[in-house]
Formats: sequence, structure tokens, C-alpha cells
Amino acid sequence: MVVPILLIVALIAGVISIAVAIIFSIIVLKEDPGNEKMVEVSGYIEDGAKTFIKTQYKILSIFVGVLFLVILLFLPSELTSEGKIPIFIPELNWEQAIAYIVGSAASMFAGYLGMIIGVKANTRAAQGCTKSLDKGFDVAFFGGSVMGLAVVGSALIGITTIYWIFQTPVVILGFSFGASTIALFMKCGGGIFTKTADVGADLVGKAEYHLPEDDVRNPATIADNVGDNVGDIAGMGSDLFDSFVASILAAMLLSNVIFASLSDAVQGAFAIFPILLSGVGLFASLIGIILIKWLKTKDPGKLLNLGTYIATAIFAALGALFVWILTATTPGITPAETWIMWKNYFAVIIGLLCGIIIGWTSDFFTRDDKPPVKNISRAAQEGDAVVILSGFSYGLLSVVPPALGISVAMILSYWLGGVYGVAMAAVGMLAIVGTVVSNDAYGPIVDNARAIAEQGGLGEDVIRVADKLDSAGNTAKAITKGFAIGAANLAVFALLFSFATEAGIIAAIKGGTGMDLLNIYVLIGAFLGVVAPVLFSALLILSVQKNATLMVEEIRAQFESNPKILEGTEPPDFHKTINIATKGALKELVLPSILSVAMPLLVGIIFGVAALGAFIVGAILSGFVFAIFMSNAGGAWDNAKKWIEDGNLGGKDTPTHRAAITGDTVGDPFKDTAGPSINTLLVVMTLTSTIFIGLMLLINGGDGLLALLEAWLRGLF
Amino acid sequence: MVVPILLIVALIAGVISIAVAIIFSIIVLKEDPGNEKMVEVSGYIEDGAKTFIKTQYKILSIFVGVLFLVILLFLPSELTSEGKIPIFIPELNWEQAIAYIVGSAASMFAGYLGMIIGVKANTRAAQGCTKSLDKGFDVAFFGGSVMGLAVVGSALIGITTIYWIFQTPVVILGFSFGASTIALFMKCGGGIFTKTADVGADLVGKAEYHLPEDDVRNPATIADNVGDNVGDIAGMGSDLFDSFVASILAAMLLSNVIFASLSDAVQGAFAIFPILLSGVGLFASLIGIILIKWLKTKDPGKLLNLGTYIATAIFAALGALFVWILTATTPGITPAETWIMWKNYFAVIIGLLCGIIIGWTSDFFTRDDKPPVKNISRAAQEGDAVVILSGFSYGLLSVVPPALGISVAMILSYWLGGVYGVAMAAVGMLAIVGTVVSNDAYGPIVDNARAIAEQGGLGEDVIRVADKLDSAGNTAKAITKGFAIGAANLAVFALLFSFATEAGIIAAIKGGTGMDLLNIYVLIGAFLGVVAPVLFSALLILSVQKNATLMVEEIRAQFESNPKILEGTEPPDFHKTINIATKGALKELVLPSILSVAMPLLVGIIFGVAALGAFIVGAILSGFVFAIFMSNAGGAWDNAKKWIEDGNLGGKDTPTHRAAITGDTVGDPFKDTAGPSINTLLVVMTLTSTIFIGLMLLINGGDGLLALLEAWLRGLF
Repeated sequence: MVVPILLIVALIAGVISIAVAIIFSIIVLKEDPGNEKMVEVSGYIEDGAKTFIKTQYKILSIFVGVLFLVILLFLPSELTSEGKIPIFIPELNWEQAIAYIVGSAASMFAGYLGMIIGVKANTRAAQGCTKSLDKGFDVAFFGGSVMGLAVVGSALIGITTIYWIFQTPVVILGFSFGASTIALFMKCGGGIFTKTADVGADLVGKAEYHLPEDDVRNPATIADNVGDNVGDIAGMGSDLFDSFVASILAAMLLSNVIFASLSDAVQGAFAIFPILLSGVGLFASLIGIILIKWLKTKDPGKLLNLGTYIATAIFAALGALFVWILTATTPGITPAETWIMWKNYFAVIIGLLCGIIIGWTSDFFTRDDKPPVKNISRAAQEGDAVVILSGFSYGLLSVVPPALGISVAMILSYWLGGVYGVAMAAVGMLAIVGTVVSNDAYGPIVDNARAIAEQGGLGEDVIRVADKLDSAGNTAKAITKGFAIGAANLAVFALLFSFATEAGIIAAIKGGTGMDLLNIYVLIGAFLGVVAPVLFSALLILSVQKNATLMVEEIRAQFESNPKILEGTEPPDFHKTINIATKGALKELVLPSILSVAMPLLVGIIFGVAALGAFIVGAILSGFVFAIFMSNAGGAWDNAKKWIEDGNLGGKDTPTHRAAITGDTVGDPFKDTAGPSINTLLVVMTLTSTIFIGLMLLINGGDGLLALLEAWLRGLF
Repeated sequence: MVVPILLIVALIAGVISIAVAIIFSIIVLKEDPGNEKMVEVSGYIEDGAKTFIKTQYKILSIFVGVLFLVILLFLPSELTSEGKIPIFIPELNWEQAIAYIVGSAASMFAGYLGMIIGVKANTRAAQGCTKSLDKGFDVAFFGGSVMGLAVVGSALIGITTIYWIFQTPVVILGFSFGASTIALFMKCGGGIFTKTADVGADLVGKAEYHLPEDDVRNPATIADNVGDNVGDIAGMGSDLFDSFVASILAAMLLSNVIFASLSDAVQGAFAIFPILLSGVGLFASLIGIILIKWLKTKDPGKLLNLGTYIATAIFAALGALFVWILTATTPGITPAETWIMWKNYFAVIIGLLCGIIIGWTSDFFTRDDKPPVKNISRAAQEGDAVVILSGFSYGLLSVVPPALGISVAMILSYWLGGVYGVAMAAVGMLAIVGTVVSNDAYGPIVDNARAIAEQGGLGEDVIRVADKLDSAGNTAKAITKGFAIGAANLAVFALLFSFATEAGIIAAIKGGTGMDLLNIYVLIGAFLGVVAPVLFSALLILSVQKNATLMVEEIRAQFESNPKILEGTEPPDFHKTINIATKGALKELVLPSILSVAMPLLVGIIFGVAALGAFIVGAILSGFVFAIFMSNAGGAWDNAKKWIEDGNLGGKDTPTHRAAITGDTVGDPFKDTAGPSINTLLVVMTLTSTIFIGLMLLINGGDGLLALLEAWLRGLF
């Protein structure tokens, strides 16, 4: 195969992106961090975040090390189909193992940089708010963009470099698996941490002692702020890093099989097509980010969404230009092949539009000026139970439109380009991920800025400005979350197809019929797959509930043992609460992490690879339902509470408000722990399956141990 | 084919069962209905229940009438595979249409009889409690048994007679569809009714005005009692009627295809095998019921479960006897065929054991002396939000063990008898359904008896006796609910296989590969299937929430307009509240009912029959998750509340208790509306698919309209 020189575009985009991220970091760091109190609080948050990340990275290193050895030693990575029985050649093992380390490191780097700058931007954005809304917005937006640019930049540099060196997407598989291992830890660990602190702080501080949000007397308030950084910034960043890489990988793996019969040059063009378009998407995001900086508006929420639309439009135009360049520079490409490439470009655009539409539906179900949130708020008038039932139902309902949206996108992109088209639609959905992550990281920064403005005593006016920035973050979040879930979903579907083409080699040899649900093992595989995200969500929510209870006890103990804390004359012990959240999160993420790798391996080994494919399908489908349901129900409860706090239906400190707080507290681990972790679970399970398929094919030729047992029993009776 | 004379056993069992039901009815009616006040209250309940059922049956008649015509006129029921293109012969249409009416009528009859006797037994059981625990138990148990016996008796008589007349299971398909239409209306309508009243009564009566449970001053209290009868007795009865018939039907349809090559006599033996064993199961249930009557114990909960175990043991023994008789009386049966029959008998036993094990796991997750309910209760100490999160997580966790149980049962029964074996396992799970329904109907009777004892002023001692009977009902309910869900699930899986053998005829003709998830339409079908129960649950819970809000407003209005109601000097207007529940329930069940028939038809027509198969699989799998999750979460919250009310963790009227009430109220529509309705949804969707498959095969040869569109588009570009 030939690697077209045009790939350099993606590399350049990645390098520029990292450069801009560094420039933005410097700009942010140069800002005034505010008064002494603010610097102190911000210092606490930074310390807490660093402590958590360091402890987590330590444990991660062990996990990554073990998997490195497994990949290196036990992975029969290539198989040939000559003769009747597949032959495994332990090849590309060390390449994949090293790529795995590089992928982990790249994701860790992006997450760490983004988070540290996020933490630094907090207090500077708060100080910015004392000058003007624009100033505050700028600092927070730059801070968030660092994360967005670091994620996409390092992912693109990694993929491009690996592909240039090894010229096969198989090694990128290792890189992708590394990224998804990190994402799993960051999402689960960060998610448990942030909600342990948040729920704990709310339950005692707000409900029992009636302290306002972010009050410094609340011992969990710093932990809560730390949680925003480790969960929402670092976690979300690593999640989208993961999906981004997975979508590109899936398209490349598929192109490897589907276009194998074409000429080397054309094959090379199709192989780099997803990387090239992702590079173009990064340029589009960069231009969007810079345009946003120039545009000024009184409504920062609209501005963030405008940035998304601008990036989309630029991407569509630039993308078309580069398709033209790619087809024009590919030697010997036929008109039919050119047409195939254009059709796949349309699939990309369909994916992107689908992402926006899913974002809109999330927006509809979680915005306070639309019927669902209004009805949920009204339900709060009938008490805690009714607000829960209402949010629960709307959360379930909100699954239907994006499911239809993804279905339509899949069918259209399939018509345009077959399974490669579906993979390209996923690439399209993630093309402007730079913008998406930037907007997303903006949210926790302004959330923390608001807290620091409160804790630094900057006064009501400044807090009001910070509040406005905060609500803009929530508006943008609806669309970016929809994007994140939709994109992850489509990316795993694409990965599934590439898994299946690998598994299909064997199925074809053995005359199998693919993943036929009428095969009992395939059916059971699908069944277990549907149950997997359910188990996973249950474990995560239980973890939050368990840790939040510990947190509640600690907060109560601090208030009782030292009455000066409540008087505000002595500070509470922040370290203890941060410690509880850190230890709890790390302890509780072990089981889900092991399960996410062990479940697909066990299903593949016991039931065979066809059943494993169905397992993944089942997990994707039920994972989609639970991810969307939990995210949207949580978002809707959150905004219902905020809408009531804005003075509607009686406003704050009414029974209606208290019921809405219950809804919000239930929604917290839904939307910030379990819901978003499911994406990562799906990617990890699918990549585990794809990487270790060679191992499974060694066991009873990929038919699994149970079929062996069955045959033995049939022989007996 | 020959219909073996042994089938008479099932007919006799059915007739005896109806006779015993009538005798039990007479015994119950002869009991003392208690004092004037009790008769009055009981009269209100009876009137309310009759009004609801009559209004519902009226609407049902229209629905049934329309479907009767559709089956009669539009159903191409048989197809031949001679030549390349399937030919449809509109045959057996009127037979199926009439069977459809008969099935509806039989289910209506059983539901009505059971419910009326249940209502009559209420007050008599309450009066019985003034004499002794035994007396109260006897009346309630006899009352409940009427429902159980009527359900199984009429189902068996119907199936046996139809089979004797038409000698083909295809006509039983109509009977089964009739039963499931009724079940859908009864479960959804009854479920919405009962929880509208229950939630409404709790929210205002208990939470706002601190009235005790079942207080006559609460205007919704009678509606609540009516709800127990229409939702829990009639609804559960029609649900199990439906599953029972479906499981037998599935096995018969499969035997029709699988054993087609055997001799007439042997084929006949396999065809009646499921009916025969169900008849034997009915005998076992009858013996169990009579033994229970003889045994006396101080723990009625254990007694009910003992009845289940006794019936199981008797069934296993009698079943083996009849397998021996069947094989001995079948002329020309070979030893190999005899062995196949025995293997399928073992599949039946595996199904039965699996039902009990699922029951145990439900029991574990919902019993107040096991960790889950204890932890949920403790979570209530941290407030409303935490108790919700805890119950939610344990509800999700509780899905895992029965999923593994069903998987193991499916694999083992498949090994023993292929897809026919899986169908026979479903038959086994439902074999002792007489006992299951009897135990289940006992619950609402004693629940109402307790209410009437309260309202009739029978004093604390009698109420304590009634309480004891009530808690026995809850213990038994855990196992019976597990049974109901597991059985429905396995029955739909079996139906799926029989659907697939029909669809398979076509797939074979066209060289298709079955339901391969790698086919994009099949994959989308599975996706939509997974979403279907989610949409359905959302609609039902929203309905309850909407109607409960109306109920709350009505109750508040009554208290405000007439202060004498709260003083207890004037009775509230029960009719208005019953009216609200009735109208609301009937209005709200229209959309879910139409969806349940329309969704599979649309999927089949648009995406083709293979996608429809995957749609059903998706719906079964996610339906299983949601049904178990909702039932167990609801049950656990309910029992956590009761455990606290028993004086634990501070007891009644503490913040902990109030939080537990919130959990219970959220759980009410989970466990009594949405959760159990999903079973019926699955059966209705699968039967709709099976019945109308001929119609779908007419459209693009079963490949659906979208494939046509795709082909047309591919022609254009």
C-alpha cells in the first residue's frame, strides 16, 4: 500500500492544534488569578485534582502494564485463511503493545494538560467576571479550548505517525485500546469522585444545614469543585479522545478489507480518508474557535452553539475541497472510485448532521423553556416521588428520537458506502470534536469560577455574571452530550463491523452464517450483552451512593466536632473529604474496569466469536438506551431545579424546590457517572473483542468451549 | 395427524378445575360478609370494579371486533413453498378469527369471575379474621384459588377443544392472540387505574393530611381498593392466561414443523405433549391447593410457598408417569423417539426449576431480611434521593441473576430438545400456573380485607391478624412475580422460534441467512426492538403520573370544599375518584395498545421479516431488563417502607420513613403498571408478527419496502 502524501495535512493540523493549545495556556496563565482568598481556594482545588490524578495514574500504570504484557505475550494477532484451519502468526505484537502504551500516554497527557489549565482558568475566569462578561467568557473559553485542542491534536499526531511508520491500521488498534483503557478509568473514577462529593455536599450542606451552593463552610465544597475538573474536564476529554480514535480506526480497518482489491494508490487514498477528514475537521474547529473569540454577544450560550454551527459549515466546505484534492492527486483512480469517495463524503456529512440533530433532541428534553422540563418542574409541586416519576418517564421517552436519528443515519450512510459508509458517518460525527470538547470543558470551568467568586467574596454582581456564563455552559452541554453519546454509539457500530469482518474470515471458512439470532449461542450472547451495561450502571450508581454516604458522615462529623466551622471562623478539613472521594472512587472502579475487559473475553471463549459479536450488539443497543436515558433524565432534573430557583413555581426554599433538589440529586450520578461511562464501556468491550479475536479463534476454532461441551454430551447420549 | 385420546386428560383437568372453582366460589359466598359498614364498603368496591370492567370491556369489544375483521379479511394465513415465489392461500381465516373471539371471551370470563369472587372474598376474609387467622386465610385462599383455577381451566378447555376440532395449532394462534389482546388491555388499563388511585391516595392522604392507610375519610381509598382488584387480580390473571396459552401454542407450532417427518401417531404425541403436561400441571396445582387447605401453620407465607413446592414435586412425578403412558400408548414409536420425549420432559423440569430459582432471586432482592432491602432502608436515612438511587441500583442488579438463570435454562433445554425443548421449558415454567395465580390473587384479597377491617371498625386485634395475612401475600408475591416474568420471557422466546420457522420457510427459499445482525436492516430492527419497551414504559408511567395529579387535585378539592369529610362526619365522594381513575386509565391505554400492534407490523412491512425477528429479540431482551428491574425495584422499595413501619430505623413518621414512602410511591407504577405490562406487550408483539407474517411476506417477498427503495436508488446512481 502507498501512504498518500496528503496525510501530512492531518499531521500539520495536529501540530498546529497543540501549538495553539500551548499559546492559549500561556494566555490563560497570564491572567490575573484574583485575590488572596481566591488563589487559596483555587490552590486547594488544584492540589485535590493533582492528588486524585496522580493516585489514579499510579493504579492505571499497573493496569496498563499488565495489559501491555498480555498484548505482547498472548496475542496471536494475524491469521491466514490458507487451508481449512486458521493459522495464527504472532506478528505485530510488540508494535501493538507499544502503540498501546503510546495511546495511553497520549490520552493521559491530553487529559492532564486540559485539566490543569482548566483548574488554572477557574479563578482567572472568576476574576475576569469582575471586569466584564466578555472577559470572563474569554478566559473560560480559552481554558476549555486547551482541552479540546490537546485531545484532537495528540490523537491525530499519534494516529498519523503510527500509520506512517507501520502502514497498517492494526497497530492503531493498540493505540485506540490504550486510549480507551484510560478513558474507562477517567470516566468511571472521575464520575464516582465528582458525584460522591456533589451528592454528599448537597445532602448535608444544602438539605440539612441550608447552606447555599458553594459555601466555603461546607467541607465537601472543594471536593465538589475538584470533581468538576477530574470528572467533567479530564473525563469527558478522555472519553471523546477515545471515541475519536475509535471512529477513525474502525473506518481504516474496514477500508483494509473492503478496498483490498483496488490499486495500491486508491487503497491508500481510502485508508487515509478518515484521518484526512478528521484533520480537516480540526482546522474547521480551530477556525470556529478563533471566530468565536472575535464575535461578541450578550448571550454566551448562543455563541457557543454558533461556534458549533460555524465549525460544521466550514468542515463541510473544506471537506469537499479535500475530497476533490484527494481524488485529483490519487494516481489511476477511476471515475467509479471517485464517485465512491464522494458518496462516502456524503455519509460523513450525514453523520455530522445526525450528531447535531441528536444534540437538538437532548436540548429539547433538557431545556427549561420546553415542555419536558416544565412538566417535570410542575410535577415537583406534587412532591418528591412525582418529580422522580416524571423525569424518569421523560428520560425514557428521550431515547426514541435519537434512536430513530441514528437508525436513519445508519441506513443512509450504509446506502452510500456500505459498512465503510457507516464508519465514515461516525468519523463525520466526531469531525468537529475539537469544538465539542472545548465547549464541554468550558462548562466546569465557569461552574468552578462561580464557586470561587462566591468563596472569594466577589459580591453578588460578579456572581450574577458568573451565573450567566454558567448557564451558557449548560445550554452548550446539551448539544455536546448528545454528540458524545451519538458519536460513541456510531463509532462502536463501525468497530463492530470491523470486528465482524475479522470474525467473518473465520465464519466464511467454516460456512457459518454470521451472527444469526436463531443460533442459540448468538441469542444468549445478545442477551448477556443487553444485560452488561445494566450491571455496569448498577455498580457505578451503587458506588456513588455508598461513597456519598461516607461523605455525609464525614461532613456531619466535622460540623459536630467543631462548631466554629459553621460559624465560619475556622475552615473545615477539605483534605479529609477529598481523600474520601479519591479512595472511594479508586476502590470502586476496579470491579467495573475488570468486568469491561473480562466480559467480552469470557463470552468469546465460552460462546464463540459469533455470540461475542451479538454480545457487543446487545451491549451497544442497551447501552445506548441507558446512556441517553440517564443523561437526559439527569439533565432535565437539573434544569427543572434551576428553573424553580429562578423564581418559578414559588422559587427557592419551597417544598416544590426541595422536591426538585431530590430530582437533581438522583440525576447527578445518572448524568455524570453512569450515563457517560457507558460510552467508554462499549468502546473498551468492542476493542477488547477486536484485539483478542485471534486468541478466541484458537479456542475450538472460534466456536467457543460450550459448543465443545455440547458435542461431547451429544456423543454420550 | 392423529389426535391421541390421552388429550382427554387435559380436557378433564380443565373441566374439574372449573367445577372446583365454582365450588370454591359457593363456599366463599356462603361466608359471613360482616357488619353493615363492611358490606357497604365492600359494595362500593364491587360497584367500582364492575363499572371499570364494564367500561373497559365495551372498548375492548370494539378493538376485538376490528381485529376480528382484520384477521377474517386480510390474513393470508398459509403459504406454500412450491416454485420460487411463495403462494398465499387465504385459508383458516374464519377459523382463526372465531378462535380469536373465543380466546378473548375465555380470558374475559376468567378475569371477571376471579375478580368478582375476589371482591366478595374481601369482606368475608376480614370477617374471618375476627374468628381466627386460619379462618381468614381459608376464605382469602379459596377466593384467590377461584381465579387460578378459572384461568387455567378455561385456557385448557379452549385449547383442547380447538385442537380436537381443527387438528392444527394454527387455529390456536387466533385463540392465543385473543387472550393476549385482553391481557394487554387488562394489564395496562388495570395497572394505570390501580396506581392512579394508590399514588393519588398516598400523596394527599398520607403525605399532606397524615391520614393512616385505608382511612375511609380519604376519597381515593375505595378507588385504591378497586384498583387492587382490577389491576392485581384481573390483570395478573389475564397476563398468566396469556403466557400459559402462548407457551403451549409455541411448542405446538414448533412440533408441527420439527416432527413433520415422523409417523402420524408419533407426530400427534409430540403435538399434544405440551397440552398434556399442562393438564398434569393443573392436577398438581389442584392437589397442592387441597393439601394447603388441610395443612395448618402459624406462618401463612410459608404455607403459600409450600403449596408451590408441593405442586412442583407432584407435577414432576405425575409428569413422568404421563410421559411413560404417552410413549407406551403411542403406536409405532421407536426407542429413539421415546428418548426424545423423555429428554423434552427433562427440559420441562428445567423450566420449572428455573422459574423457582428466578422466584428466589426476586425474593432475595425484595425481602426485608436480606441485604438489598436493608441497605435501601438504611439509604432512606440519608433522604429521598439516596433511597431512590439505592433502590434503582439494586433493581438493576437484580436483573443479572435471572438473566443468567434463563440463559442456562435455555441452553440446557436447547441441548435436550432443540428449539422445541426451549418451548417445553416455557411450558414447564407455566405448568403450575394454577398455583401461581392462586397465590397471587390471594394478595390483593387480604390487602383489601385489611382495608375493610380498618374501615369497618373491627379493632386493632383483627387488623393485626389481617396484617399477618397481608404480609404472607407479599412473601408469596415475590416468587410468583419472578415466575410470571420468567415464564412470559421464555414463552416469547419459544414463540420467536416458531415465528422464525415460519419466516424461515421464506428465508430458505430466498437463500437468506436468517436474522444476521450484520445485515443492516436486521441490526436496525434489533435496535428499534430494544427501544420499544422503553417507549412503552415511558408512556405508561407518564399516564400514571398525569392521572395521579388529577386525582390529587380532586382529593384536595373535596377536602377543601367540605371540611366534614376530614372530620369523618360525612363520607367523601368515592364515585368521582373512581371515575377519574376509570376515564384516565381507558384514555391512556389507547396509544400503548395501538403501538403494540402497529410497531411490529410497521417494522415487518418497512424492514422485512428478518428485521422483524430481530425486532422481537431486541424487545424481549430489553423488555426482560425493564420488567425485572421495575418489578424488583418497586418491590424492594415497598418492603423497605414496610420494614421501617415495623419500627426499624426509628419507625413511622420519621424523616427516614417519609423518604421510604417516596421510594414506595416511585416504585408503585414501576412494579404494578409498567413492569408487568411489558410481558403482555412482548406476547402481543410476537403474536402479531406470527399471525400477520403472511401479509408481510406479500410485500417485496418479506424483504420489506426499504429494500425496494434501496434497489431503486441504486438503480438511479
